[in-house]
Amino acid sequence: MLILMEPACPAEHVRAVLELLEASGIRAQLQDSGESVSLIAPHASKVFKADRLETLKGVRRVVPITSPFKLASLDAAAGRTVVEVRGVRIGGGELVLVAGPCGVESREQLFTTARYVAEAGVKLLRAGAFKPRTSPYSFQGLGEEGLRLLDEARREFDLGIVTEATEVETFDAVEACADLVQLGARNMQNFALLKRAGRSGKPVLLKRGPGATLEEWLYAAEYILGEGNRNVILCERGIRTWSAHARNTLDISVVPAAQGLTHLPVMVDPSHATGRRDLVIPCARAGVAAGADGILVETHCQPEKALSDGPQALLPSDFIRLVDECRRVHAALQVQHAGAGLAF
Amino acid sequence: MLILMEPACPAEHVRAVLELLEASGIRAQLQDSGESVSLIAPHASKVFKADRLETLKGVRRVVPITSPFKLASLDAAAGRTVVEVRGVRIGGGELVLVAGPCGVESREQLFTTARYVAEAGVKLLRAGAFKPRTSPYSFQGLGEEGLRLLDEARREFDLGIVTEATEVETFDAVEACADLVQLGARNMQNFALLKRAGRSGKPVLLKRGPGATLEEWLYAAEYILGEGNRNVILCERGIRTWSAHARNTLDISVVPAAQGLTHLPVMVDPSHATGRRDLVIPCARAGVAAGADGILVETHCQPEKALSDGPQALLPSDFIRLVDECRRVHAALQVQHAGAGLAF
Amino acid sequence: MLILMEPACPAEHVRAVLELLEASGIRAQLQDSGESVSLIAPHASKVFKADRLETLKGVRRVVPITSPFKLASLDAAAGRTVVEVRGVRIGGGELVLVAGPCGVESREQLFTTARYVAEAGVKLLRAGAFKPRTSPYSFQGLGEEGLRLLDEARREFDLGIVTEATEVETFDAVEACADLVQLGARNMQNFALLKRAGRSGKPVLLKRGPGATLEEWLYAAEYILGEGNRNVILCERGIRTWSAHARNTLDISVVPAAQGLTHLPVMVDPSHATGRRDLVIPCARAGVAAGADGILVETHCQPEKALSDGPQALLPSDFIRLVDECRRVHAALQVQHAGAGLAF
Amino acid sequence: MLILMEPACPAEHVRAVLELLEASGIRAQLQDSGESVSLIAPHASKVFKADRLETLKGVRRVVPITSPFKLASLDAAAGRTVVEVRGVRIGGGELVLVAGPCGVESREQLFTTARYVAEAGVKLLRAGAFKPRTSPYSFQGLGEEGLRLLDEARREFDLGIVTEATEVETFDAVEACADLVQLGARNMQNFALLKRAGRSGKPVLLKRGPGATLEEWLYAAEYILGEGNRNVILCERGIRTWSAHARNTLDISVVPAAQGLTHLPVMVDPSHATGRRDLVIPCARAGVAAGADGILVETHCQPEKALSDGPQALLPSDFIRLVDECRRVHAALQVQHAGAGLAF
Repeated sequence: MLILMEPACPAEHVRAVLELLEASGIRAQLQDSGESVSLIAPHASKVFKADRLETLKGVRRVVPITSPFKLASLDAAAGRTVVEVRGVRIGGGELVLVAGPCGVESREQLFTTARYVAEAGVKLLRAGAFKPRTSPYSFQGLGEEGLRLLDEARREFDLGIVTEATEVETFDAVEACADLVQLGARNMQNFALLKRAGRSGKPVLLKRGPGATLEEWLYAAEYILGEGNRNVILCERGIRTWSAHARNTLDISVVPAAQGLTHLPVMVDPSHATGRRDLVIPCARAGVAAGADGILVETHCQPEKALSDGPQALLPSDFIRLVDECRRVHAALQVQHAGAGLAF
Repeated sequence: MLILMEPACPAEHVRAVLELLEASGIRAQLQDSGESVSLIAPHASKVFKADRLETLKGVRRVVPITSPFKLASLDAAAGRTVVEVRGVRIGGGELVLVAGPCGVESREQLFTTARYVAEAGVKLLRAGAFKPRTSPYSFQGLGEEGLRLLDEARREFDLGIVTEATEVETFDAVEACADLVQLGARNMQNFALLKRAGRSGKPVLLKRGPGATLEEWLYAAEYILGEGNRNVILCERGIRTWSAHARNTLDISVVPAAQGLTHLPVMVDPSHATGRRDLVIPCARAGVAAGADGILVETHCQPEKALSDGPQALLPSDFIRLVDECRRVHAALQVQHAGAGLAF
Repeated sequence: MLILMEPACPAEHVRAVLELLEASGIRAQLQDSGESVSLIAPHASKVFKADRLETLKGVRRVVPITSPFKLASLDAAAGRTVVEVRGVRIGGGELVLVAGPCGVESREQLFTTARYVAEAGVKLLRAGAFKPRTSPYSFQGLGEEGLRLLDEARREFDLGIVTEATEVETFDAVEACADLVQLGARNMQNFALLKRAGRSGKPVLLKRGPGATLEEWLYAAEYILGEGNRNVILCERGIRTWSAHARNTLDISVVPAAQGLTHLPVMVDPSHATGRRDLVIPCARAGVAAGADGILVETHCQPEKALSDGPQALLPSDFIRLVDECRRVHAALQVQHAGAGLAF
Repeated sequence: MLILMEPACPAEHVRAVLELLEASGIRAQLQDSGESVSLIAPHASKVFKADRLETLKGVRRVVPITSPFKLASLDAAAGRTVVEVRGVRIGGGELVLVAGPCGVESREQLFTTARYVAEAGVKLLRAGAFKPRTSPYSFQGLGEEGLRLLDEARREFDLGIVTEATEVETFDAVEACADLVQLGARNMQNFALLKRAGRSGKPVLLKRGPGATLEEWLYAAEYILGEGNRNVILCERGIRTWSAHARNTLDISVVPAAQGLTHLPVMVDPSHATGRRDLVIPCARAGVAAGADGILVETHCQPEKALSDGPQALLPSDFIRLVDECRRVHAALQVQHAGAGLAF
């Protein structure tokens, strides 16, 4: 149930509702939008009727959450969630770009890339220190050393850091460094990792598994939300199909479909979705046009020397073009937004 | 081989080359771009060496076509193909919209829809008179009566007609009415129908089969081109995957991937690609942003009464929004085009 | 509706029911199992109530057909359909093998292959005279000359001929030669061709499209059945998925799933399903074990010289092994059959 | 490299080779087939030439491993691996059945099911104590209490226990109880968990991910093997496709395809592969016929009351039939085996 409190409702009324719920074994989460406060209690309807709760002091209205995604559902929030990452607001109507190399390979590689990323006005840098790889014989990342370099890059270029946590064992170290912790596609249903991320104070970017339905993706988000971390961003990165011209198939319609079900922001990763440099820019533009809240893209100062995912990393010049074109598309549709508020 | 003739080369030189090829059993097709003339002879390399042909009068250069798509390949043309349909140029950088109901159901339904389509500035009307249906018990279209109504609508609203030919038997009738003959997804490998379309004087819109790779789609186009019809437009309409939130998965990256292989225009049909009204507009915008040469969309004056595909047909008001937003996205990227000529 | 007549019901009673239906515009088909007669009238329920028809003379019982596949449905028949092809009964519990090269290439190739096929005790020879090919530049079959060779092979080796009809235009010629007319996977929704096959006096083998669901496959059969041809055999030949070790994915569970919905026999083609010689025999055995009524397999006297599908054609020695192992599996399960009648 | 030692080669020679390798930073694993000893050293070829190693005392021959799966590859072993689980040999030509409920739900449920499983002559009982579930709100298993019940069942019915480890955190507890530790499909690329399993003394059953290729599956096995655990069994359990009649698509041809690449045993799980009780038996038979080393199947004393996967669990009577039919199919092909040794 979503329990909407009266505007300016005193804290003691909220506390009283929480206590009543807890006394019946019902966990509830507090949402404070600034203007009003509400409580989400996924299983309250097993114990209480809505009209019973509506008699409590300070309760304005009680709305049942019919969606199976009790916390991720659009019904479960007063509005769309805006996730703040080092001052960047994701989900609030602005176009957010996240860019960088697949993995941290060296100080020079990271810094050269970070420099032109920052110069393009992008505020968030992505790069993996721990790399989950299909083969045990592939480059597995620089690990802790990679995290140190990322930390340095943040200070040097004033960039927020987006980097992947691949396992519970090393989560603490990643969490300490990251401004936004990425959970990768292969780990979308690594429930222990999801729960650990749910107990983190850092926002989480949850990639869709290449074989996962929208429903399963939202359930995965639900595992994170259920542990108390409300700052979850979804990221589509292509699904596995028989269509052979690209590494994966960018499931572009999942962007509006997800936005129709959940209050969480949705981003698009055109690099993993295609695996081909020449398809990344058109697909990034498509992601923006479809209404994505942001684009996550791989760029490398020297893609031909990349230790992983070189063929999909944008050259610096192409990256500049991507930023420009994505902004044009976004701006063209924003005009509309301002006017009608209903463009997407 | 692609045999490029000298600018302003006399017709007799061209004829001489054609005769030499024919004498060796090689079929060749003439391409006249206005500025220069070239010959495509898919199998000439089995008989002639390039330098032998380059000694002929009027021959400027001979280029081997290494692609398996001898006629559809980008190598096989001097530039991108522009297909003209009743004065509308498809493939020349402009955004072309084609809209209308799934099927012709009645004079009133067709005309009411055609009216607002035309009023939105759209020049091409789509509607099926012959409907291929999965079940023999579903509405199969009005047939000849539907064609008569389409003919009337063309005159009444000054619209070009796009309608589907479903079989060789009724191709003549469809061809007589259509300004652009559509070949549907289920028929993408109906080779008899492809060849019949190849012998038509009307341009052809070839939908991608829901289970077809890009390669197979281009081979299907090759069957049409091989019979002499150079006016072929490709149309992506979603592929069949396990992703369950939409009827099909719009394979958005196939747009730039196809444009990298072929000189033929590529359109996107977001209606069949999603099957859900609420996803059509974001996906249409994505199609334009990905660089599609046009959008083919279903709209119906009263979707709730449609005899087929009602859930995916746009309401009139939504259709107006689609037209506006697609144009914005296209314009935003055109600016770039004009400047750099390299946006897509 | 399925209208079951009394045993030994006089012909005039049957005729009277048919006339009543026809007078209301309802088409009905007669089924004679030898023991009893029934009428299938897919849309009778739109006009008549069951109890009204049960008052007619000779009518024992009227059963509604709730399945959308009015004619293909298991509910629509008194029992499982047995299709006879030149004395071979398909669907009656015996294991039927159909074997031969992909295409007829020459008299010698066909006859050499036919000889060892016949010597292995197989009664039906498969080979295409008309070959539908993805590329217009691939070998398209010997056409009429191929049919003549097949006709000769039938007489020489006393084999029934299974060959593909690829288009309405050449159907007459194929039909004249074939004992069993094959409709290929690409044509599964070529409705004009399905209807033509439905008007044929020859039995039809309908391959499943590589992108078609079970439901769509049964609807395709419905198009054939609807024209009056009751002798339809379904054949699974692999579906298109992302699983990359084989050309297609043999959808083995569709065999029992289809048998749970339809009275038509179901065969399996392990050659197209895998495209790899080393996987054909295990998959043929799996097909038999899953309960298929027969196996359709490619074998070639010299696969390395085959003009099409060489990599999947069995060598003569492997073919002998396939026949032996399939028979062992079938025999092992037949014992059960005899006892319980319910093994599958 | 695979370094084959002379028969009856003294231990000191083996030690000398190992020391030489280690001195160059190359890890090697010892394989003792009983008859002969060999060393697998995946990356030795980066440092040593084969003929250099062949000069060492006791070395009979050095074979390069060209496969990317250095340890899982068929080239990397002297023969097929036989994994022993509580006296049951998996991979040695016998048919191994593993059966039980999806999850441990209660003592009564587990014991009732275990009793008829044991009475059917099946030696291995499967049941999950920790259940990974798509939704956080679904039954998650009894946990430690479940393990205690499994332990009791082992003693009571003399059955080996197969149960799933879902995370590194609880691996110790599962490992202590299990005779064969299952890694589930969602965790196929949970690399931390794979590595933990690789350090276990218990054999591991590795399910294929529903979206994983054969190649990725073998790489996952490589992670386990790389930590030193040689007792890995692969289990196909259906892949995710658009084919809609079953929950997943049993990729039957992956069984012989895997056996052509790896020395590890391959099992089939027809329950998860279909999700439908009526398809389980035919698919189990198909698995055996395709050459699987074993079948893993769900059965429940009262499927209609199951807390998870009820629709796919076999009733006791159906389970008896499955055992009988699978054994018939296996026996029919074993005859062949004995004679030719080449049936699969």
